[in-house]
Amino acid sequence: MWSYEPPLRDMQFVIEDLLDAPAQWARTPGWQDLDADTARQILAQAGELASGVLAPLNAVGDSQGCEWSAGEVRTPAGFAQAYRTYCDGGWPGLACVPEHGGQGLPQLLNVALHEMLNSANPGWTMYPGLAHGAYECLHAHASAEVQDMVLARIVSGEWLATMCLTEAGAGSDLGQVRTRARPVADVASGARAHIAGSKIFISGGEHDLTPNIVHLVLARLPDAPPGSKGLSLFMVPKILPDGSRNAVRCDGIEKKMGIKGSATCVLTFEDALGWRVGEAHGGLAAMFVMMNASRLHVGLQGLGHLEAAGQNALRYARERHQSRAAHPPPGYRRPPGGADPIVLHPAMRRTLWTLKAQAEGLRVIALWTALGLDEATCHPQAEERSRAQARVSLLTPIVKAFMTHLGHLGADQALQVWGGHGYMHEYGIEQAVRDSRIAMIYEGSNEIQAIDLLQRKVLPGLTGKPGSGSAWPELIGTLLHEAGLAGARPALAAAARQLAERTRALDEAAYALAGASLADPERPLRVADDFLHATGHLLLAWAWLRSARVAAERIAAGADDDGWHAAKAETAGFGLDHLALQFDAHLTRVMQAPALPWLPAL
Amino acid sequence: MWSYEPPLRDMQFVIEDLLDAPAQWARTPGWQDLDADTARQILAQAGELASGVLAPLNAVGDSQGCEWSAGEVRTPAGFAQAYRTYCDGGWPGLACVPEHGGQGLPQLLNVALHEMLNSANPGWTMYPGLAHGAYECLHAHASAEVQDMVLARIVSGEWLATMCLTEAGAGSDLGQVRTRARPVADVASGARAHIAGSKIFISGGEHDLTPNIVHLVLARLPDAPPGSKGLSLFMVPKILPDGSRNAVRCDGIEKKMGIKGSATCVLTFEDALGWRVGEAHGGLAAMFVMMNASRLHVGLQGLGHLEAAGQNALRYARERHQSRAAHPPPGYRRPPGGADPIVLHPAMRRTLWTLKAQAEGLRVIALWTALGLDEATCHPQAEERSRAQARVSLLTPIVKAFMTHLGHLGADQALQVWGGHGYMHEYGIEQAVRDSRIAMIYEGSNEIQAIDLLQRKVLPGLTGKPGSGSAWPELIGTLLHEAGLAGARPALAAAARQLAERTRALDEAAYALAGASLADPERPLRVADDFLHATGHLLLAWAWLRSARVAAERIAAGADDDGWHAAKAETAGFGLDHLALQFDAHLTRVMQAPALPWLPAL
Repeated sequence: MWSYEPPLRDMQFVIEDLLDAPAQWARTPGWQDLDADTARQILAQAGELASGVLAPLNAVGDSQGCEWSAGEVRTPAGFAQAYRTYCDGGWPGLACVPEHGGQGLPQLLNVALHEMLNSANPGWTMYPGLAHGAYECLHAHASAEVQDMVLARIVSGEWLATMCLTEAGAGSDLGQVRTRARPVADVASGARAHIAGSKIFISGGEHDLTPNIVHLVLARLPDAPPGSKGLSLFMVPKILPDGSRNAVRCDGIEKKMGIKGSATCVLTFEDALGWRVGEAHGGLAAMFVMMNASRLHVGLQGLGHLEAAGQNALRYARERHQSRAAHPPPGYRRPPGGADPIVLHPAMRRTLWTLKAQAEGLRVIALWTALGLDEATCHPQAEERSRAQARVSLLTPIVKAFMTHLGHLGADQALQVWGGHGYMHEYGIEQAVRDSRIAMIYEGSNEIQAIDLLQRKVLPGLTGKPGSGSAWPELIGTLLHEAGLAGARPALAAAARQLAERTRALDEAAYALAGASLADPERPLRVADDFLHATGHLLLAWAWLRSARVAAERIAAGADDDGWHAAKAETAGFGLDHLALQFDAHLTRVMQAPALPWLPAL
Repeated sequence: MWSYEPPLRDMQFVIEDLLDAPAQWARTPGWQDLDADTARQILAQAGELASGVLAPLNAVGDSQGCEWSAGEVRTPAGFAQAYRTYCDGGWPGLACVPEHGGQGLPQLLNVALHEMLNSANPGWTMYPGLAHGAYECLHAHASAEVQDMVLARIVSGEWLATMCLTEAGAGSDLGQVRTRARPVADVASGARAHIAGSKIFISGGEHDLTPNIVHLVLARLPDAPPGSKGLSLFMVPKILPDGSRNAVRCDGIEKKMGIKGSATCVLTFEDALGWRVGEAHGGLAAMFVMMNASRLHVGLQGLGHLEAAGQNALRYARERHQSRAAHPPPGYRRPPGGADPIVLHPAMRRTLWTLKAQAEGLRVIALWTALGLDEATCHPQAEERSRAQARVSLLTPIVKAFMTHLGHLGADQALQVWGGHGYMHEYGIEQAVRDSRIAMIYEGSNEIQAIDLLQRKVLPGLTGKPGSGSAWPELIGTLLHEAGLAGARPALAAAARQLAERTRALDEAAYALAGASLADPERPLRVADDFLHATGHLLLAWAWLRSARVAAERIAAGADDDGWHAAKAETAGFGLDHLALQFDAHLTRVMQAPALPWLPAL
């Protein structure tokens, strides 16, 4: 009953019309053969994979789950075959460099691919989703020896990879990691070490999709300083180069709320052989290289859920008949049977429009961020690369936290469209609610993202800290620029004025906060979540306004034969009319930063 | 790991200090022996049942679920024994009349009992939760013959009961019910009939807790008009008076998102013998008698979840150490190990205070509504009874929808405190998220509640419809009255002024809406949810202000030796400072009522 249709035309609109990505490709060595048509074809193929191969396995993954037995994990029926199809299509290496066998295409396309995979089957997508982050980390930091050993295998999909950070006592606080690394005696530099310790919550820590699994493990060398500055990163393969089994064991899998098709493992390392990646005690820095991409990918889970929940809710609301619509549209002919489709009822329309407007707005933000990732790598001028990098760093915590928040709450809200049926397993939406919840937690909880945004990315620049860059003022400028463009169109003038006012208000609140935090250093921590959500709602309003403006330009140019652009403008208008005001309460709290007492009886 | 401590002192504060319920009891025949001490003892015993007997079965109920086999349903291990303990304590008849074996105590105490049962084990509580509604319906509408047959058995708990309304094609729209009732040939009046049809989503439709189950079934007599005015209500026992099995069969149970300990059944009636309850074609009216109490009880599920989630989150946040607190409280001594308890981190404090403030505020609203239920039955003056009845009718949709909304979202928000552990089954919070979701749907979806509030309870009075009463202006008066009382205390003056301003603004918006809806009849349906939520947030602010004011009076009277009232005032202050502003966005939407387009491509 649950199904998925790739939003290809909407992606095309964002990539080509809103972001003009083909212009970037045209000036980038290696991408000059890539044009809009080619990109459309690639995404159409990705869409077929998502809707045809992965979506049908989504419910199976949830009801079967993974099975652990004597250290082995069996994934749900069909998962391994789907993974082979994915590898045969060359998808693992889509955005990997050609020298390791990748296709060398933009991250932008990889992000669009992963939105679709996550819409179709988030549990399955955990396996390949982690591999790309590991690829980036190894590509940037691993020695030539390690790269030769594993990179081509990861790019082809022959092997998969994990990130082994969390331990029972070390979640948000990686400084508490206790896993030890004892250097191999004959390698003075500690380039190889025996790893001993226990890691939990390791997604894809064991499975039957690939013959080998490459674990990236944070551990402490003997001379490590305490805390997070004493962590080193090691590449620990399940199978050693000589074909023997390394001393890493899966001691069980977790019983979880959702993404049951993804095996969440307890891994025990008993002096397993590992190759160091990056500097000794520099493990966290090496991990952080992959963070921007990984967090963006977790944000895509939110978008994927929102899109899939919205599509299915709309379809159900058209099919389900209950009660007569009190005020049907002009010319509507009531069907027999005493009831109209619930898509006509105002409460359902509001929910459906909300899901649709948020998904379309978040897609703009996600793809814009991905465009920045590519810009940061490929722009010919170093200064532009570093500006893009700063913009992506600023946007990343928002993408991760705001999109996963709306993705989960959107799925949860969508469930209401099904009424009692939504609570029943077979309709699929309750799985989406459960599956979507984890994305608010892993890869840095949403609360951690909020602190990252405000304390590391925004405030340093406002207090003139050297080297802190100007990403925030540039973002403010981007929003005001669109407000100016859209404001020239009478139909959008009011919404443009509102965006400009809200943007200036948040900017002023940020400066005021920077000042007030000198006397009240806890203040930013008290309002970090509100600051992130205020910025997120502002970005959504920007995305809607830009969409409405560009759609209006297309209509004015006579390029809207089928009414698609008019519908786009209507969706954006709904967001601006009904949803943009959610910004206000967050801004008020940022400005007032009310006292936050200690808990009683501590 | 999940546990529950009954909030007895808080209940006592609300019942005695805020609502002065003992004064009501003192003037009510039959309750003159009930005093504050007796009520405390009753609730303490109820608390022991909840925390000692039911809470330990909560996780079991979820992991075992119910098992269906050949028409029989086995409930989770321990459920039947717990039910016997519940009956032995006389709890089923707490608020039932003595003539049928009940204890004749106030609904207020029954509501406090059910908050605790729902906190401890919402799946189990579904079984007895429905019985009280059935009791009320039969007590008000059944013939003496039917009352003699079943009422004493329901009051003692010997038999349980169901409500059989929903069919595959009839959920929110009961006018679509197709189950037929064929009068027994020798009973001309149709007082007995053979019932044929299929009902779905029947909670407790079959189980092993009691030897007999009394089904209250909506069906159509042969001469019934179409739609909801053609429904008659029948009492259909599983076991007939002669001991033989009636022709009702459980054809399966649903696989649900949560409350897995509650058997949600498909029931097939194949000419089962039923006794009519109430008038022919007057079934819906008979069902609605129990609606106020039933919807209040569903609202209590929301409160129960919020309370339990908040308690467990607070305990976990005290035990879990991650990262150093950036700005610990004065005099705090850092524990060894490099990390502080996460209860010190601002993001966690904000979440924990939110849960606590909302639970305490909602409890005031719930118990105030329950007091009104009692007033509507027991007040010596008819005019006061009918005023109380009107107030309860107005509050009921808010209690149902707003409390279940906050209950589910609160549990969902609480999960974040556990981080990754919260997503794992064994910590209990993910079960609370799943269990709490259904309360937003059944007993009239929250969207239906919103329409009920605005279109049936509020607008008719404002447009001067005869007989529509003055419950809304009286509610407005109640809020303004408290604002006046609290406003006399300097520390509360600002919050009191804000409550008064917001109250007047919503009242004006309601009148404006009544006027505007003449020209735009869909307008109330577009804003009904926002109107309900605005009113809910206003009631919460009222509850916090009243709590803060009464706590301040106690402190001023020297009656706060242990600081309990100071903590109460602090919690209320958090709600007023951080949460009350959520009202504003809802009000804005009520006032603006932006256009709501039709969905594309319908």
